[in-house]
Amino acid sequence: MHFPENVLPPHLEPHLGFIDQLRHTGHLFWQRGWSRGTSSNYSVVVNRDPVQLLVTASGKDKGNLLCSDFVLTDSRGESLVSGQPKSSAETLLHCLAAENSEVGAILHTHSIWSTVLSDRFWPQGGIWVEGYEMLKGLSGVGTHEHSEWFPIFENTQDIAALAERVRTTMATVSQPLHGYIIRRHGMYTWGRDLNEAVRHVEIIEFLLECLGRNAMLA
Amino acid sequence: MHFPENVLPPHLEPHLGFIDQLRHTGHLFWQRGWSRGTSSNYSVVVNRDPVQLLVTASGKDKGNLLCSDFVLTDSRGESLVSGQPKSSAETLLHCLAAENSEVGAILHTHSIWSTVLSDRFWPQGGIWVEGYEMLKGLSGVGTHEHSEWFPIFENTQDIAALAERVRTTMATVSQPLHGYIIRRHGMYTWGRDLNEAVRHVEIIEFLLECLGRNAMLA
Amino acid sequence: MHFPENVLPPHLEPHLGFIDQLRHTGHLFWQRGWSRGTSSNYSVVVNRDPVQLLVTASGKDKGNLLCSDFVLTDSRGESLVSGQPKSSAETLLHCLAAENSEVGAILHTHSIWSTVLSDRFWPQGGIWVEGYEMLKGLSGVGTHEHSEWFPIFENTQDIAALAERVRTTMATVSQPLHGYIIRRHGMYTWGRDLNEAVRHVEIIEFLLECLGRNAMLA
Amino acid sequence: MHFPENVLPPHLEPHLGFIDQLRHTGHLFWQRGWSRGTSSNYSVVVNRDPVQLLVTASGKDKGNLLCSDFVLTDSRGESLVSGQPKSSAETLLHCLAAENSEVGAILHTHSIWSTVLSDRFWPQGGIWVEGYEMLKGLSGVGTHEHSEWFPIFENTQDIAALAERVRTTMATVSQPLHGYIIRRHGMYTWGRDLNEAVRHVEIIEFLLECLGRNAMLA
Repeated sequence: MHFPENVLPPHLEPHLGFIDQLRHTGHLFWQRGWSRGTSSNYSVVVNRDPVQLLVTASGKDKGNLLCSDFVLTDSRGESLVSGQPKSSAETLLHCLAAENSEVGAILHTHSIWSTVLSDRFWPQGGIWVEGYEMLKGLSGVGTHEHSEWFPIFENTQDIAALAERVRTTMATVSQPLHGYIIRRHGMYTWGRDLNEAVRHVEIIEFLLECLGRNAMLA
Repeated sequence: MHFPENVLPPHLEPHLGFIDQLRHTGHLFWQRGWSRGTSSNYSVVVNRDPVQLLVTASGKDKGNLLCSDFVLTDSRGESLVSGQPKSSAETLLHCLAAENSEVGAILHTHSIWSTVLSDRFWPQGGIWVEGYEMLKGLSGVGTHEHSEWFPIFENTQDIAALAERVRTTMATVSQPLHGYIIRRHGMYTWGRDLNEAVRHVEIIEFLLECLGRNAMLA
Repeated sequence: MHFPENVLPPHLEPHLGFIDQLRHTGHLFWQRGWSRGTSSNYSVVVNRDPVQLLVTASGKDKGNLLCSDFVLTDSRGESLVSGQPKSSAETLLHCLAAENSEVGAILHTHSIWSTVLSDRFWPQGGIWVEGYEMLKGLSGVGTHEHSEWFPIFENTQDIAALAERVRTTMATVSQPLHGYIIRRHGMYTWGRDLNEAVRHVEIIEFLLECLGRNAMLA
Repeated sequence: MHFPENVLPPHLEPHLGFIDQLRHTGHLFWQRGWSRGTSSNYSVVVNRDPVQLLVTASGKDKGNLLCSDFVLTDSRGESLVSGQPKSSAETLLHCLAAENSEVGAILHTHSIWSTVLSDRFWPQGGIWVEGYEMLKGLSGVGTHEHSEWFPIFENTQDIAALAERVRTTMATVSQPLHGYIIRRHGMYTWGRDLNEAVRHVEIIEFLLECLGRNAMLA
């Protein structure tokens, strides 16, 4: 591995705080095996009106994100600054989540359990999780007597089409989603800030691993 | 993740030693996956007569506990200092364990194995563990030829009612418990000091993982 | 464990950059359990014409590689400097991979999953992996709709004979390999530089673990 | 956890090098889950004629061994210095291994896999491992075409009796053992020095985990 210089581009100087937090988050998720092989992408909403996102650039090592591995985009995922690296291929999924004005950070992770279980639960179209105390860590959930639905979407390289399918599902489910899974491609979640989004990743990964280990016992 | 300032409130100054140890413990358990997503809570008995507890505040990240994330309570879980954050929702279970004058620290952890096995052994009402050398690490156990009972209680948001059920069980079992499990909600153990309570967590998690992996082979 | 002095031999001074990167890589892989017990070997192509390789010496602890644990060899694996330690027994497999002028680094790892799955898939002669988004991290793969073949070779202590079998397979497969497995002996992969080779290790290990865990559920 | 002062007793000053290495080893094994809950014990032969052992004291946290957590004993496990802490209950098993003049270090670890597999293979009286390249890391083994036998002994609190059973087995097996397992009580191995003994632990744990995961697939 080459150890490149770590230089903050001038146009990202106002966002150094978020960049530090996202680099820290990336290292953590990479250590846990949730962001290996340059998979995953992360964003924070740095401006609400109009929406501006700070998104990880495409194809970067999440265990060692550099200050220059981030891109500023508008609400449609278009670059706000000329000469920036390409933003993640899945930026449109971040933009979709950011349409909700209560969302301040979006995290896509790519763990082994979310990948394996996306196949197992594919015939049902998603995963119901209920009765676990850990569900209370999801924003707005106040009891373990709660049923949470994580829909699974077929994977595709056509992210615009995928974003539309996610949008349709979000508009029709009976209670707000806290996350969803792309088949053999990991998981998306979000929160009002990065702390909450990281908590949601920890909780959803915990719940999926419970389902996975339980299935190994059966 | 936001990195907040880490300031010790004046009323906690006498307890800085315990706070350091609990922060260290929290980081360790969080790393191992036993305290993810702000789950778990920990306490130490800082005064015996009358009983005063130092308990983790509700909803804090156990991987990064701050000096201000602790609450002083009396023997009924009531705040001893005005303006403190809310103590953990499960403080009453700490108070119950602290009624035993030989208990100096109480730890609630929330691992995947304790969650998964609480379902598997639910029909039996608990888990018998016998014949493992590791049992000798439990306080007062001197041989592997020992049978240890970990009762499982149904989860509830009514912690006062749960505490009463635990109390009744403790009063009727034929040998003192070293811990118990709440269904789909992790595990409680304790010790005469924090060192012993941490050792009990390590031992009970080891034993549960042995049972879990054994069940995967069968 | 003895902590020996860490001295860079004079003839390796021009390669200190690569040595630092390989030591870092070794520590990382050892931590993850992919290079335990002195298993594994790594190399980089330090000169292309004629080919010169910097290879790990035989039998070294990959978690604590010293600057003197590296050997310079020619394209046939022969030592280029008198008095060097013995290069890895499998140097010829590195030489074979380095014949491709686009290969700059070769990594052999020895994980538990690659070992266990090499037995399970032995009757089929290899492992087909298809439909995983993570495949896109392999050099030249642009979509998850891709089928990747990892052939499995019978283990032997006759590395020259094994190298010939690998060469024959490489010449006859319909698309370039990204890696192969030796039965009960781990995995080989490579890349145009060390960064890419490390990424390929992460990706192949991820994919194998997905197959392994999936098989535990079935 | 209490953080006690770390003071080297004067009579251990000549052995500070070994103590540093054993403390490092303990922390490593504890991190990996092979020495949790004060389980495990380690020793090095600090003098050969007469035999003198430096052994871990009984009941210490292997993740945080102090300089005072070591005991000097003679070849029968008797304390060589008055006022030392109690040596490990299993010191006689270290003494037995140290009778072989080629043994310089003995390690007892207590992993989950060695515990679980000791039950699974108990009816056969031990575990045959063959055909794995990793076997070559065992001292004196030069090919993967090797069959290694790890006998399993019934656990007991009568260590003297257990030592005699191990001695008898060692005298009757057709090739020298590299390690053995105590039922539901972990594993013993050794080496000509601590480096080799640590390597043997890594290798035996790797092999056992291969067998364990393989059994989960079947």
